[in-house]
Amino acid sequence: MKIFVLNCGSSSVKYKLYDMRDETVLADGRVERVGQDNAIVTHQSKGKQKISKTMPVLEHTVAIQESLALLTDEEHGILKSADEIAAVGHRVVHGGESFSDSVLVDESVKDTLQSLVDLAPLHNPANISGIRASEKLMPGTPQVAVFDTAFHSSMPKHAYLYAIPYVLYQRHKVRRYGFHGTSHKYVAGRAASMMGKELKDIKVISCHLGNGASLAAIDRGQSVDTSMGFTPLEGLMMGTRSGDIDPGAIFYLMEKEELEISDVNSMLNKHSGLHGMAGLSDMRDIEAGIEDGDNLCKIAYDLYEYRIRKYIGAYMAAMDGVDAIVFTAGIGENTPSLRTAIAKRLSFLNIGIDEDANNQRGKEIEISTPGSQVKVFVIPTDEEVMIARDTAALI
Amino acid sequence: MKIFVLNCGSSSVKYKLYDMRDETVLADGRVERVGQDNAIVTHQSKGKQKISKTMPVLEHTVAIQESLALLTDEEHGILKSADEIAAVGHRVVHGGESFSDSVLVDESVKDTLQSLVDLAPLHNPANISGIRASEKLMPGTPQVAVFDTAFHSSMPKHAYLYAIPYVLYQRHKVRRYGFHGTSHKYVAGRAASMMGKELKDIKVISCHLGNGASLAAIDRGQSVDTSMGFTPLEGLMMGTRSGDIDPGAIFYLMEKEELEISDVNSMLNKHSGLHGMAGLSDMRDIEAGIEDGDNLCKIAYDLYEYRIRKYIGAYMAAMDGVDAIVFTAGIGENTPSLRTAIAKRLSFLNIGIDEDANNQRGKEIEISTPGSQVKVFVIPTDEEVMIARDTAALI
Repeated sequence: MKIFVLNCGSSSVKYKLYDMRDETVLADGRVERVGQDNAIVTHQSKGKQKISKTMPVLEHTVAIQESLALLTDEEHGILKSADEIAAVGHRVVHGGESFSDSVLVDESVKDTLQSLVDLAPLHNPANISGIRASEKLMPGTPQVAVFDTAFHSSMPKHAYLYAIPYVLYQRHKVRRYGFHGTSHKYVAGRAASMMGKELKDIKVISCHLGNGASLAAIDRGQSVDTSMGFTPLEGLMMGTRSGDIDPGAIFYLMEKEELEISDVNSMLNKHSGLHGMAGLSDMRDIEAGIEDGDNLCKIAYDLYEYRIRKYIGAYMAAMDGVDAIVFTAGIGENTPSLRTAIAKRLSFLNIGIDEDANNQRGKEIEISTPGSQVKVFVIPTDEEVMIARDTAALI
Repeated sequence: MKIFVLNCGSSSVKYKLYDMRDETVLADGRVERVGQDNAIVTHQSKGKQKISKTMPVLEHTVAIQESLALLTDEEHGILKSADEIAAVGHRVVHGGESFSDSVLVDESVKDTLQSLVDLAPLHNPANISGIRASEKLMPGTPQVAVFDTAFHSSMPKHAYLYAIPYVLYQRHKVRRYGFHGTSHKYVAGRAASMMGKELKDIKVISCHLGNGASLAAIDRGQSVDTSMGFTPLEGLMMGTRSGDIDPGAIFYLMEKEELEISDVNSMLNKHSGLHGMAGLSDMRDIEAGIEDGDNLCKIAYDLYEYRIRKYIGAYMAAMDGVDAIVFTAGIGENTPSLRTAIAKRLSFLNIGIDEDANNQRGKEIEISTPGSQVKVFVIPTDEEVMIARDTAALI
């Protein structure tokens, strides 16, 4: 069975084609700058040469059409016909309180997705566009929606409610949803396998540290808390996002700097975090800056590390202990110094780090010592394979 | 030496008179509804009958004048003359970055306090009024300012900075300051004494749970983090304050409910927390509600407990361990069930609670079992004696 996985962002489309017999990736590609006349298309089918080209791609339909053309291209493709695709799995950012699991798309699902646009105005519209385009281009092929929020739907009330007037939760569904659910679920499952245990028997804290970043407390397979909230702004310090901040500080800044909501929202989402503190949003640049003696890089790095560490502590308290800590996504997978810094300052947990293992990058590996009371792993995330699995399971 | 301690709020004045030879409280009183013509004055001198009366008190000067009159009253007083007062110690809420310790008030101190009004518009003006009134009524008597923020001035940068554009910290001094410093310092010191140790040798997490509530991580005598931030809104869920919340949720609510900054500020400060969730802001009422099967009371209680527990975990991670946890202030001192709930869910720390000890209220007591790896204390706070000590030390 061949499953096509689509991740449609506001200005990009990423895709992978899986052969589900052994979860092989048959093809992998992306279209960047969707909406522009100089979009960049890159595609590689298994065993074929990579292709990259520039072309006008004004909407998602064109991007998906191009990807299907490349998949069935004589020179660069791997399919005889798009009919070989058994189903399409779509990454959808926000499932609100309506979706606690992946779902086969029908008219009512699309209506519900539309009603959730308010909760994720930047992401859900692109996801919906992707679904509509796929339906148009592959009529009759089942479409499945896999939600970033779904894995966190198991959170208890005391973790997902904010301490605001309860009527505002009832009226506007303002609560913690959390994101990166597919990633957290994947790495937690892998950690259990690597420990030779069942996920239902262990407590995992997973640290998804990419340009967006979140932690999740996964108690015997259930997400019981996560650091992103109603939006992806809450929680950790990120590349360009502030994460947690006193609301009182926001009001003060709005008054002092005469900012509108949209200004301060943009400031906290796009001009804060590593970028706001050090002028650099890439952790490799921050590390290089520290090497060069840049004090703001050092402060930004310390803040970044400290906030992760505090959340790890908070989630230990949430679950009454932890068996494994997992680092994933760009920064999580590729920053050994960060992992060491965190583990070293959690010595009261008797965590031991094997520095040789830790210094390997982007590889699935246990980095704790055999005697470490808490196991620590680096696990490259794979949201696409999770989407492919859920899609295959639903059809 | 006799020290007069004054705590001037926007609509109240509380005072205590100390004999510093043995820190005896010679008199204790308060004026409530300052600014109204039916203010309530209560006063009790040591060994004398308590007096309570209603009178017009339109400004702080009148309140302090009345307190001095009562202190020197033939029937209710304990002083022959106000000249016996060696110095006045004032609680001042916000010292900004200017004051890292208590200070003898002079013209330049008053100018600096005035410049900090922006940071604490609700509190500092009343504190300044109190100082000016005392100077007027007791000319020549030294005045000392003791700051709620000062104890936290030892926080490292990674704890006090927000991950916002660094220039906004430089320009507006927007950072974490923290409050309740005098209380945290007092109970941490008492905890060390009760353990027969030096504060410089232990790690303490103190939980000041009053109508306002904050935790502090006190690492060998130094506050290294605290849950209140730039304002007292951040951190724990409180009686009427939300504590931590996704800034994105705030912007969403502002748009949906068409709220101005002042509306949402008031909503989060005055209509949220226990009150916003359950309609009740007093923990005793919440507990009674749970007894009566009120579901919102249960949710509010669980949320309240959970957020304290998460901060305890975070601060263990901040300090790489903890030796003692202290509960203080109204809710902290008087809610045994809350202390048990927190400790029970931190069983991975091998905390044992002695339920008999825990069931005593408002008493300085160790509530952990002898074998408990982390010591747990209930310590009634005493900010006034700390203010008196600092005042005596400075003159």
